[in-house]
Amino acid sequence: MKIRDLGEFPFLRRLRERLPHANHDPRIRLGVGDDCAVLSLPGLTVLTTDAMIAGVHFQCEWAPFFVLGQKAFAVNASDVAAMGGEPAFALLSLGVPQDSAVEDLDAFFDGFLDAAQRMRTTLIGGNMSAAPVLMISVSLLGQTPHGSISRSGAHVEDEVYVTGTLGDAALGLRILTEELAGDAESAAVRHLKQRFLCPTARVTVGKELAAQDLATAMIDVSDGLLQDLGHLCEASQVGAVVEAHTLPLSKGYRTFLGAQDWALALAGGEDYELLFSAPVTARPRIQDIADRSGCAITRIGSLVPQADGVTVRLPDGPRAASEFTGFNHFAQSRP
Amino acid sequence: MKIRDLGEFPFLRRLRERLPHANHDPRIRLGVGDDCAVLSLPGLTVLTTDAMIAGVHFQCEWAPFFVLGQKAFAVNASDVAAMGGEPAFALLSLGVPQDSAVEDLDAFFDGFLDAAQRMRTTLIGGNMSAAPVLMISVSLLGQTPHGSISRSGAHVEDEVYVTGTLGDAALGLRILTEELAGDAESAAVRHLKQRFLCPTARVTVGKELAAQDLATAMIDVSDGLLQDLGHLCEASQVGAVVEAHTLPLSKGYRTFLGAQDWALALAGGEDYELLFSAPVTARPRIQDIADRSGCAITRIGSLVPQADGVTVRLPDGPRAASEFTGFNHFAQSRP
Repeated sequence: MKIRDLGEFPFLRRLRERLPHANHDPRIRLGVGDDCAVLSLPGLTVLTTDAMIAGVHFQCEWAPFFVLGQKAFAVNASDVAAMGGEPAFALLSLGVPQDSAVEDLDAFFDGFLDAAQRMRTTLIGGNMSAAPVLMISVSLLGQTPHGSISRSGAHVEDEVYVTGTLGDAALGLRILTEELAGDAESAAVRHLKQRFLCPTARVTVGKELAAQDLATAMIDVSDGLLQDLGHLCEASQVGAVVEAHTLPLSKGYRTFLGAQDWALALAGGEDYELLFSAPVTARPRIQDIADRSGCAITRIGSLVPQADGVTVRLPDGPRAASEFTGFNHFAQSRP
Repeated sequence: MKIRDLGEFPFLRRLRERLPHANHDPRIRLGVGDDCAVLSLPGLTVLTTDAMIAGVHFQCEWAPFFVLGQKAFAVNASDVAAMGGEPAFALLSLGVPQDSAVEDLDAFFDGFLDAAQRMRTTLIGGNMSAAPVLMISVSLLGQTPHGSISRSGAHVEDEVYVTGTLGDAALGLRILTEELAGDAESAAVRHLKQRFLCPTARVTVGKELAAQDLATAMIDVSDGLLQDLGHLCEASQVGAVVEAHTLPLSKGYRTFLGAQDWALALAGGEDYELLFSAPVTARPRIQDIADRSGCAITRIGSLVPQADGVTVRLPDGPRAASEFTGFNHFAQSRP
């Protein structure tokens, strides 16, 4: 059935009936279904919004709608993680082509709600309207029980860390757009595509860094490592040196590009890993967080005076970060 | 200059420099420019999101981008008003065609920020990406110092009120789409178009109703009077009788349709007026709010048992509300 035939209100009514009950959350005074949700938000609340648009950020053919719903949640949860917070309440604004299949929209919501529930987040409101292409805009509220970590607290001589591995999502995107050929059945290809299609927000690591007050500054890697490191450095008024040989590369990445081609690890977008700075003294406790969370955390460089800029140390010498470029939504038209 | 040539980050940097400082708001712990904003939100917070999409909700040629920015704020502020709240913090998610003129986007932001500032609201975050058509999604946080008014508290025998006048925006839209012809220079045409292009969120009236605890239930009229009255009745488990001859019609409306054609007043969308119920005893104090705010508040009917449904009393007898239909984003493709 097409959404045009079912209609907006019947679809939303069906959806509302499927929403999990959140009766036990004392912060929710009024949930979905009124002009506004009403919340009681003790402590500090962090707030972000991010959008995904068909033909720009994804193609509907690339993955089941369930996975698209999971990603729409994860990219916002990653921003909350980058503050050291935990997601709590979501708003979902959807623009939907009139010939969309109701089953696809159901699957999208299932994926979104699945990802939300895993992080104990309640969908608290939203809207739906017609649109020429599928557009998904999510706003996410989180809470920071241990205080929040901004981009601006880094100091010269702090060390720079990143979670997980870098460049996989950019490689996965290139396989999906067929810029790169790969055996669809191989483990490497499946891993790289999965990293683009369904990133993991590093909420546990972010929260633990906040709880132990270890990170001096933090950001999530969405535009590419060097671009986001540049944002952190600009906000903190420092420079940075990245040691290329230390960059965490997945087996899939090394299968495709080898262990000496760092271009995508440095500048590819949509990793949704956490990039943070910490004093040298924090090393053992950061290792301990990595061990307990099961998420790799790798030291990739250190901070220097702002005048020295951001550079990458490669086997053949240092290069300025500006020689690598991150993703610019307006400079590149993708996919 | 096109946004493609300027780029996303330079545009956002310019924008950030133009944002008014909100240093004096103790609720803002961290504003625009990090992964998330950080807020301290005492009391109750109300939360809503609404979207406007070019070719669906508006055409870019219809009005200056400044006015579009004002409307994007107002339609969300109207939801906050319908809870008895006042807007406080906004998130703005924009999808922008790559050949958009930077001047147009500047004008859009000027209009949005102008409307926000008039309601002492701070733009606290957002994002921008490429899109096939202009897509605007706003999330708005408000606060309800006097408690919030839901849709579900109405009782049988309460009276039904509406602010302002009805059907003007629907008429204005029909003039803009040239379904209706009108002298572009006439005061009536200018008034009706303005009511569609730049609605007024009734924040003062909503807040005053909450402060004096007068309204038993409230909703804003965005989908058409009868449709939104239906939502209120469903949530409150009551029915309603609307007296057609009491519906507030503007001079412009009467110029076009006369004083006896209530179809658009009953079912036209985008009025962004407040529709609420109140006990008979509240009459004098509601009149007092109308007098002091300068916003008309008209009694248009009363609530009956749910089994009696929602009906409209016309000169030739009663008719069921279902004979009039409100706007359905998926049943109609507009403009």
